[in-house]
Amino acid sequence: MSANTFGTLFRFTTFGESHGPAIGCVVDGVPPLIKLSEADIQVWLDKRKPGQNKYTTQRREPDAVKILSGVFEGKTTGTSIGLLIENVDARSKDYGDIAEKFRPGHADYTYWKKYGIRDYRGGGRSSARETAMRVAAGAIARKVLEHRLGSKVKIRGALTQIGPHAIDRARWDWKQVDKNPFFSPDAKAAELWASYLDGVRKSGSSAGAIIEVTADGIPVGLGAPIYGKLDADIASALMGINAAKGVEIGAGFAAAALSGEENADEMRMIGKSGSKKKGEVTFLSNQAGGILGGISTGQQIVARVAIKPTSSILAPRKTIDIHGNNTTISTKGRHDPCVGIRGVPVAEAMLAIVLADHLLRHQAQCG
Amino acid sequence: MSANTFGTLFRFTTFGESHGPAIGCVVDGVPPLIKLSEADIQVWLDKRKPGQNKYTTQRREPDAVKILSGVFEGKTTGTSIGLLIENVDARSKDYGDIAEKFRPGHADYTYWKKYGIRDYRGGGRSSARETAMRVAAGAIARKVLEHRLGSKVKIRGALTQIGPHAIDRARWDWKQVDKNPFFSPDAKAAELWASYLDGVRKSGSSAGAIIEVTADGIPVGLGAPIYGKLDADIASALMGINAAKGVEIGAGFAAAALSGEENADEMRMIGKSGSKKKGEVTFLSNQAGGILGGISTGQQIVARVAIKPTSSILAPRKTIDIHGNNTTISTKGRHDPCVGIRGVPVAEAMLAIVLADHLLRHQAQCG
Amino acid sequence: MSANTFGTLFRFTTFGESHGPAIGCVVDGVPPLIKLSEADIQVWLDKRKPGQNKYTTQRREPDAVKILSGVFEGKTTGTSIGLLIENVDARSKDYGDIAEKFRPGHADYTYWKKYGIRDYRGGGRSSARETAMRVAAGAIARKVLEHRLGSKVKIRGALTQIGPHAIDRARWDWKQVDKNPFFSPDAKAAELWASYLDGVRKSGSSAGAIIEVTADGIPVGLGAPIYGKLDADIASALMGINAAKGVEIGAGFAAAALSGEENADEMRMIGKSGSKKKGEVTFLSNQAGGILGGISTGQQIVARVAIKPTSSILAPRKTIDIHGNNTTISTKGRHDPCVGIRGVPVAEAMLAIVLADHLLRHQAQCG
Amino acid sequence: MSANTFGTLFRFTTFGESHGPAIGCVVDGVPPLIKLSEADIQVWLDKRKPGQNKYTTQRREPDAVKILSGVFEGKTTGTSIGLLIENVDARSKDYGDIAEKFRPGHADYTYWKKYGIRDYRGGGRSSARETAMRVAAGAIARKVLEHRLGSKVKIRGALTQIGPHAIDRARWDWKQVDKNPFFSPDAKAAELWASYLDGVRKSGSSAGAIIEVTADGIPVGLGAPIYGKLDADIASALMGINAAKGVEIGAGFAAAALSGEENADEMRMIGKSGSKKKGEVTFLSNQAGGILGGISTGQQIVARVAIKPTSSILAPRKTIDIHGNNTTISTKGRHDPCVGIRGVPVAEAMLAIVLADHLLRHQAQCG
Repeated sequence: MSANTFGTLFRFTTFGESHGPAIGCVVDGVPPLIKLSEADIQVWLDKRKPGQNKYTTQRREPDAVKILSGVFEGKTTGTSIGLLIENVDARSKDYGDIAEKFRPGHADYTYWKKYGIRDYRGGGRSSARETAMRVAAGAIARKVLEHRLGSKVKIRGALTQIGPHAIDRARWDWKQVDKNPFFSPDAKAAELWASYLDGVRKSGSSAGAIIEVTADGIPVGLGAPIYGKLDADIASALMGINAAKGVEIGAGFAAAALSGEENADEMRMIGKSGSKKKGEVTFLSNQAGGILGGISTGQQIVARVAIKPTSSILAPRKTIDIHGNNTTISTKGRHDPCVGIRGVPVAEAMLAIVLADHLLRHQAQCG
Repeated sequence: MSANTFGTLFRFTTFGESHGPAIGCVVDGVPPLIKLSEADIQVWLDKRKPGQNKYTTQRREPDAVKILSGVFEGKTTGTSIGLLIENVDARSKDYGDIAEKFRPGHADYTYWKKYGIRDYRGGGRSSARETAMRVAAGAIARKVLEHRLGSKVKIRGALTQIGPHAIDRARWDWKQVDKNPFFSPDAKAAELWASYLDGVRKSGSSAGAIIEVTADGIPVGLGAPIYGKLDADIASALMGINAAKGVEIGAGFAAAALSGEENADEMRMIGKSGSKKKGEVTFLSNQAGGILGGISTGQQIVARVAIKPTSSILAPRKTIDIHGNNTTISTKGRHDPCVGIRGVPVAEAMLAIVLADHLLRHQAQCG
Repeated sequence: MSANTFGTLFRFTTFGESHGPAIGCVVDGVPPLIKLSEADIQVWLDKRKPGQNKYTTQRREPDAVKILSGVFEGKTTGTSIGLLIENVDARSKDYGDIAEKFRPGHADYTYWKKYGIRDYRGGGRSSARETAMRVAAGAIARKVLEHRLGSKVKIRGALTQIGPHAIDRARWDWKQVDKNPFFSPDAKAAELWASYLDGVRKSGSSAGAIIEVTADGIPVGLGAPIYGKLDADIASALMGINAAKGVEIGAGFAAAALSGEENADEMRMIGKSGSKKKGEVTFLSNQAGGILGGISTGQQIVARVAIKPTSSILAPRKTIDIHGNNTTISTKGRHDPCVGIRGVPVAEAMLAIVLADHLLRHQAQCG
Repeated sequence: MSANTFGTLFRFTTFGESHGPAIGCVVDGVPPLIKLSEADIQVWLDKRKPGQNKYTTQRREPDAVKILSGVFEGKTTGTSIGLLIENVDARSKDYGDIAEKFRPGHADYTYWKKYGIRDYRGGGRSSARETAMRVAAGAIARKVLEHRLGSKVKIRGALTQIGPHAIDRARWDWKQVDKNPFFSPDAKAAELWASYLDGVRKSGSSAGAIIEVTADGIPVGLGAPIYGKLDADIASALMGINAAKGVEIGAGFAAAALSGEENADEMRMIGKSGSKKKGEVTFLSNQAGGILGGISTGQQIVARVAIKPTSSILAPRKTIDIHGNNTTISTKGRHDPCVGIRGVPVAEAMLAIVLADHLLRHQAQCG
């Protein structure tokens, strides 16, 4: 896969740096005749937009997306869709400190060593700002899924842990997700997180998080074994999100401790006996997270991604500079105390993109 | 990425079913003039070979690899390398039961629904037998890494958990790995696992595991952001292994609970003050697992993959058949009680393959 | 595109050298449930097989293909199809002369300079022997086209010129193609070519040729602008055939001298007026060769490829050796006096492969 | 290869319609630390710009390119380069006629049938306007070639035929190319073409052309057999240009009529005998066009592409409309009487792109 392109049939290519004139992407492989407007994309970008509450960066970016091509009279034409977002809050400030020092936990050092040059302004290409384009491409992927599979498809995300504080899954309520600034499905956890993050922010530190994303309404059959497995592609999609350090499908790491009996989800036909209706396949559990052998089972697809704490923190940290001197750095500025929060719409988008791609791939091979 | 091909520049394509006449692969993009013999590949295949002890399947496959092309007078020629392993232990037996019933936890149902046909003999294409070709391709990837980077490169794997029993990392000793049948770096854990797996096997159940793979001697700079990140490609490579349910890099899921200070690995120049030697960059910790911004840092690369319990178990399980009837199945036969064990050389191979691919990609772009 | 892989969704990967133990390929992306046997492939290989008459090389290769995977109970399973042909006529002879000298017109020098090593036996990887696998993959592509589009699809090839002697297109008769050793659609031209090639052979020289391939029954809509145009992919497929130096679609180079009026094929609805039947689109000419804007028009697809004279000739030629000395070479052995002849089934195969690939791609995007 | 992306390592992805707000592209895989400014790109765009003389369309487009990313402080950073050109001369006019009628020779009908929708304004996505982005990407490819190979690399193009009138190759003079509006290397031919095209334009007709592009200074070794051959990729690149109908390498179609002796370019070492200097390889002719076995020979690379006459002509032509009615169309507006002329910088760009891609690919594999 190319450096700045993701996907096989439904694919997108992004460009743009945090403090350049604009970021953008090209979405390719979109079926024709799908209704698409800027508003369809904007609604998802607004979910990710910074500055909406005190738990995210105070940087102000309207993130207003423009469709430059591929849509005619309100419908996709099958040609490549160009999207552009102008950067408006790229404050011209003195970058002196980060221009020469490598911020621990950031990509500063690795970009410098790999390329011999880096756009240090706001992290340049490695900035999470790039993820706005993933959300935009994800909005189109949702449209593709809906166009082909109907409105039963639902891609949703939630935060299940901030710092050491996990939600109580017994309290999971999707309706809560939009009612708190953390995308928490557990109202009580949201309260706890609020006070916890206040403390984190005041101490100049930061916190990690775990995001869970699910897809309902996905038919059995998506995924292309052996090296285009649905779970492998989801893993790549989620691990590629900035600050991601782990990915799980279904039972995930907990599967290692299950017995064979607990792990293998049993199957039944329902609505069959005594009924004239053809039965439907059901599974008695979902340890598999909706994927077996790299192919969707028809159950809910469940994936999680672990996000490390924001690397930009106020506490002075030991580091080196580009001249090879030991020094320290304290990262000031408008940073998310927990980047995992705004990662939720990004993870949803990546899941939608992988599913749209595999839907097209499946239909190509299997009709 | 195509269904049966993995990689961008260093890439391999596999074919073959568990009970067909042969399995094979084509390895493409290998630099010329690298010494390569069948013995160089066989040594790694032998690590994965079944039937070596009572904790792995008793199926007998010599897994003798033949090089069919791409090597001339003992050296690679730069053309595609064809590899073939004949299947010799494909017992012709009555497959009646699994021919019509879907084994829970296996890919039987999803292959059937996706393709409308499946080679049910031994799992067909979804069998872990296919992973022999990954190990073979991985052996060549190791040669490529060594050819370009020298003998300092070391790709190693170990088992860190079987069922609920994790190793004690304080006892980690790489020398132990080859001294027990579990690739355990902790001799005491190996003893415990032996008795634990005896019980699992006697009860007709199975156990999951966690594999850890590491790479030493990898220079800073490998990885192609944004959508060819080294960690995203490792995630895809490891999640694509049969029975994998989770992947971590460095601190992994534990990163969610770290503070910003704990997480961001500080940096220092060493051997600098008072010395005439040019200093070397060092990190004071390795929560990052050797990757920042999708690019290797020069530290040890550390990844883990969670393997679910073997789905083939003796205990009767509820399932359905291809005609839509409820039924039960008990999977007899020669199965690994813990597929995670033989997954170790496979995970090593996949890591080597990703690194060889990214080495070529990096040198293409950055010289 | 990778070095040894061709295609996007329907794709194949080949390996093998002229004088190695075997050549083979892996065909990926084939839809499931297509009837396929070795005989279905062998019939096309036999068309290309050497030693069938005095106008092709006298090397004896049965070219017996084996299917190693991807087919179960006579039907494709959707998994990768492994094909193998063992080399049986790889005479162990003294290669001393060509081992050190570069044969003019051959790839000897370029392989040597690119890779620093080459398998000189019979041309190694650059031998036209590799094209047997293209014919095999093409046989499967034909099956895919027939499976999705029905038996109306017809991919055919013919030779339209040998040396300076072109056919008379007014005498074109497809039935003649299988009645002479040249795949000539013009019986009179075949007679002329026979005596012409006798002379060429006796003089130790060789002759070039032009191949024309056509596809009937291809629906409007195949081709993916802008960089996956059907004509661009056909051009790549045909120019990649050994010894190819030119490719044309429809009017080809002659289009440069046409007027705008002559060139642009006019359109009409037929069977419309006074009829209850829905009209059908027809074109009044086919200068376009069945492709407009990179997309098939529904007309016959017409392409031509120019094949240079066989580079292996008896006449002594000036060349250099691997040590940098001036020398001469005379290439003895069993060579085709006109490689263009056996190129006909290869060109047909490549056209079928491109069309099968684009059919899947089109159906993925446009349903 | 994806629909809107070209290339493997050096690759670019375009978007944009003729009459949309903008066209653009993303160039990926560019090595870091190459000096690049908008002026470096603009100079080539200006060569292709319409409205410069009476032989090209009078549409006025400044084609001013903006670099949106991937360049920092005047140098490439190794990240994706976003380029944008705003459309300024998209006159809002009545498109009624072409909105419903299919223009013969154009892509109107095939886009309509493939996608069920088309942006008919100025040809939409199928407009030659898109080729501006190829020229822009080509300008960057030239920079890559120069960065890695030095200033000896020279990619040039010329027109060798308009309508039935070919140049006299004995009069070939590269200096003439920039002195006439046709990129003719033959001053006399340019005069003839001027009067010929005046007639064509007055009669409302159009003319085809043949473009020749060459590359000097390309080292031996570029090209990746078997399916990434340099000539196959050049064929794809040139055949993908709007209105292209044929592609040749070296002797091209004329090779079919050559004898084996004439065709195979002999080799000699020069500067060797009696000299202490190491000899240099030379070829006594260049029928191969600088490519053998899909790999560059170190000689000049020579390719030609045939361009059909502009399909937009004044003369009324029979066609049908989207409702299935027979009708006629006369295409008014500002059209190039010979699109081949402005195709010259496009063909040069495509050649540069293929070479830059293969240079990176070669260095990846062979160091």
